[in-house]
Amino acid sequence: MHDMRNNPTSAVIVIGNEILSGRTQDVNIQFLARRLGDMGLPLREVRVIPDIFDTIVNTVNDVRARFDLVFTTGGIGPTHDDITSEAVAAAFGVPWEPHPEAWARLLHLLGEEKFNKARQRMATMPRGARLIENAISVAPGFAIGNVHVMAGVPRIMQSMFDHLAPSLPSGRPIFSRAVHAAGAMEGNIAEGLEAIQQRFPELDLGSYPYYRAGGTGVTLVAKGTDHERLDAALAEMTALFDSFGYEAVAGEPGH
Amino acid sequence: MHDMRNNPTSAVIVIGNEILSGRTQDVNIQFLARRLGDMGLPLREVRVIPDIFDTIVNTVNDVRARFDLVFTTGGIGPTHDDITSEAVAAAFGVPWEPHPEAWARLLHLLGEEKFNKARQRMATMPRGARLIENAISVAPGFAIGNVHVMAGVPRIMQSMFDHLAPSLPSGRPIFSRAVHAAGAMEGNIAEGLEAIQQRFPELDLGSYPYYRAGGTGVTLVAKGTDHERLDAALAEMTALFDSFGYEAVAGEPGH
Repeated sequence: MHDMRNNPTSAVIVIGNEILSGRTQDVNIQFLARRLGDMGLPLREVRVIPDIFDTIVNTVNDVRARFDLVFTTGGIGPTHDDITSEAVAAAFGVPWEPHPEAWARLLHLLGEEKFNKARQRMATMPRGARLIENAISVAPGFAIGNVHVMAGVPRIMQSMFDHLAPSLPSGRPIFSRAVHAAGAMEGNIAEGLEAIQQRFPELDLGSYPYYRAGGTGVTLVAKGTDHERLDAALAEMTALFDSFGYEAVAGEPGH
Repeated sequence: MHDMRNNPTSAVIVIGNEILSGRTQDVNIQFLARRLGDMGLPLREVRVIPDIFDTIVNTVNDVRARFDLVFTTGGIGPTHDDITSEAVAAAFGVPWEPHPEAWARLLHLLGEEKFNKARQRMATMPRGARLIENAISVAPGFAIGNVHVMAGVPRIMQSMFDHLAPSLPSGRPIFSRAVHAAGAMEGNIAEGLEAIQQRFPELDLGSYPYYRAGGTGVTLVAKGTDHERLDAALAEMTALFDSFGYEAVAGEPGH
């Protein structure tokens, strides 16, 4: 039986003071979490860190040693606080220097006058970086080793990930099943759910209370790579709700 | 001149597979980022980690040593995947045992039959834990040392933070000024912005391109604790936009 714990693992580093100050609501984590899960590259950890050189260096080195794939978002623009690229070079101990292809492309697209010192930063990368294209901005992201450096603006990041995805390894895709019941209380079903988890050790069972205008309830979710086992777990979770007189409804609750 | 870098620092640990799988869009980070910033307790790092015992223990111990205040969200319910409380006890090297006040309260509110083994977990805490109340659920959060353990459900977490806030230390509140200009390009203003940052080393200047239906542009944001310095930086950022013929408008762009 395949176990999703054998899949390659991913981590995301969100680089940017705007998330930590609360100015910006991050949406990159959820996008990457879903896409990586679909590809069988489950996201196992996220770090959100400020635009501080040593913090980026230390975080990149810590995370790239512990996970198979690392994705960073943010800090690759032309302004003084865009220091991700230089910090990643330092993390890998390689020179930060003009990337021949990126440099030639930006010079060609922008012309000499517009390709000023600030924009030249966007074509300066760790030696050996592989470019990550995108359909929106002229400036590419890049990969070095297992670290993939992408923009922070969601539209650009998403385009970079689309370009990057075919070159990534892939694991067994992770599927999920959900069942919910209005009025259900976690404290009642917890013991039965734990027993189901023990019978399906290769699945990841989660219990999520919800609080909505239409009332409260609980959603149970099973995640794993084997459709038959997921269906079997779903049947047991549904029966668990039934045993307490809760009306079980397949799927997530509507809005 | 007061420097916001002298403020106490905060970190948040988001505990929960539902964020890492992409099932749930996190909203707790932004809530805490804003509130902590307003209190002068700037958020300096976020970790999002799964419901894995050793991961929680190691992350709590790493983060509590590096930041003045730590806030966790998630994993304090009654189900098998709610292991935050036990892991925090292990991180502090103290017994995980019935908390006399929480235990008595849940027993009183729920009655003996409903206060089953699963719900008893919610009244079991690291020895010496201080309760964190909330207005919505019967189960409290708790604090031990500099670590504050809160629910993952946003409404409950927010209520816990409201109850907790008066007991927290506070630093100099962090204020911000913003100015934006439609059509502005980061690559043009980057050099001038860096020069302003150098004249205001105690402020944190950020540049954020935006892409909206109404067009693209750039927002410049200054953060700091001193209103006069912020106003002075705002004037210089506005003049910078003007110098490139961009029409500067105070504040963040509308939607």
